[in-house]
Amino acid sequence: MRTAYQEQLAALSAQLGDMCGLAVSALERATQALLDADLSLAEQVIADHEHIIALNRRAEEAALRILALQQPVASDLRTVVGSIHIAADIDRMGALAAHVAGISRLRHPDCALPTDVRASFAEMGARAVQLAKTAQEVLLSRDPEKAARLRDEDDAVDAEHRHLFTLLIDHKWQDGVCSAVDVALLGRYYERFADHAVEIGKRVVFEATGGLPGHKQMA
Amino acid sequence: MRTAYQEQLAALSAQLGDMCGLAVSALERATQALLDADLSLAEQVIADHEHIIALNRRAEEAALRILALQQPVASDLRTVVGSIHIAADIDRMGALAAHVAGISRLRHPDCALPTDVRASFAEMGARAVQLAKTAQEVLLSRDPEKAARLRDEDDAVDAEHRHLFTLLIDHKWQDGVCSAVDVALLGRYYERFADHAVEIGKRVVFEATGGLPGHKQMA
Repeated sequence: MRTAYQEQLAALSAQLGDMCGLAVSALERATQALLDADLSLAEQVIADHEHIIALNRRAEEAALRILALQQPVASDLRTVVGSIHIAADIDRMGALAAHVAGISRLRHPDCALPTDVRASFAEMGARAVQLAKTAQEVLLSRDPEKAARLRDEDDAVDAEHRHLFTLLIDHKWQDGVCSAVDVALLGRYYERFADHAVEIGKRVVFEATGGLPGHKQMA
Repeated sequence: MRTAYQEQLAALSAQLGDMCGLAVSALERATQALLDADLSLAEQVIADHEHIIALNRRAEEAALRILALQQPVASDLRTVVGSIHIAADIDRMGALAAHVAGISRLRHPDCALPTDVRASFAEMGARAVQLAKTAQEVLLSRDPEKAARLRDEDDAVDAEHRHLFTLLIDHKWQDGVCSAVDVALLGRYYERFADHAVEIGKRVVFEATGGLPGHKQMA
């Protein structure tokens, strides 16, 4: 039989899994809106971020209740505090997806992406969405080996991000300053979204091993 | 006489104040390095970020110890959990200052800033540093009224940030794509640095009032 503590913790993990699913969907739709210059889809992503914000608060309140009522120690304590960090990471992922959508909305009816970088963003979007899906699985399975693999998956996002900057800086960019600024910021948003998914993985590893998660080295 | 809990909490607050002081100094020096194309100062800021990362871990460990040993409830619990968020915010502030320094290093011996935007960055840097100083004072005084004022101070950073984008997008930018990309990313780093200082203020208000801190509306 599960204790009340285990029930509450399982409910909190499920909440985080649901939140992460919303972040996956937000970036999937934001990328689609970006590629298709789809205003109503972009606006939907922006509006839906409120829902992730509300769930972040609810997750933090649930964690505070567990801390107050169950007073967990050792690895249980790390898990609950880790959940608070993870909820905050997912909230930021939702905000970054909304920022992507915000640029689509700003440039509508034009497409924010020049033709030359469409494939890059389709690729970076697909990889970042995949990272978030892996993070969601890890939140439900709490599998530290899969969690550790998130960092490797992130390397592909970073490589695509560097490639974008090569296009912007080293080659002759023909699409004007406004586009270059949009592309630079969009690249940053995808990179940060992926970083937060990696952070979720590091937290799960931390909970399993007891070591505080390390920082990724600055590029 | 103060209880062991109060002693530990005061020590944690002092730790956060010290960390915030390091973030202030990091952005002050990063801005100077940016304005003067000073490579060694930029490298110092990047190297010093390791110190803030280490202090973030130490603060989180101290908070976990307090939770495990003192098992605080109600507003005490909120304060300890709030400290974990605040330490993470300051860590990000240090990372963002290091990102500013990273762009100076990348462009050295050139200056990353075209002449037209030097004054904007000097202004934005001074205001963001002032915000972080206010956040540091708030961490030590726990004054919710001063904490609430951080949001107003942030409006000036946002206004300067918007002005930068007007220069980039609406006017005829003469300094090339590479500079435009640097300026856009630098503007984003300063804006995010200031946002984290505002978050610190919101946490302090939250601890005083018990309401979970709200999000700033998307621009």
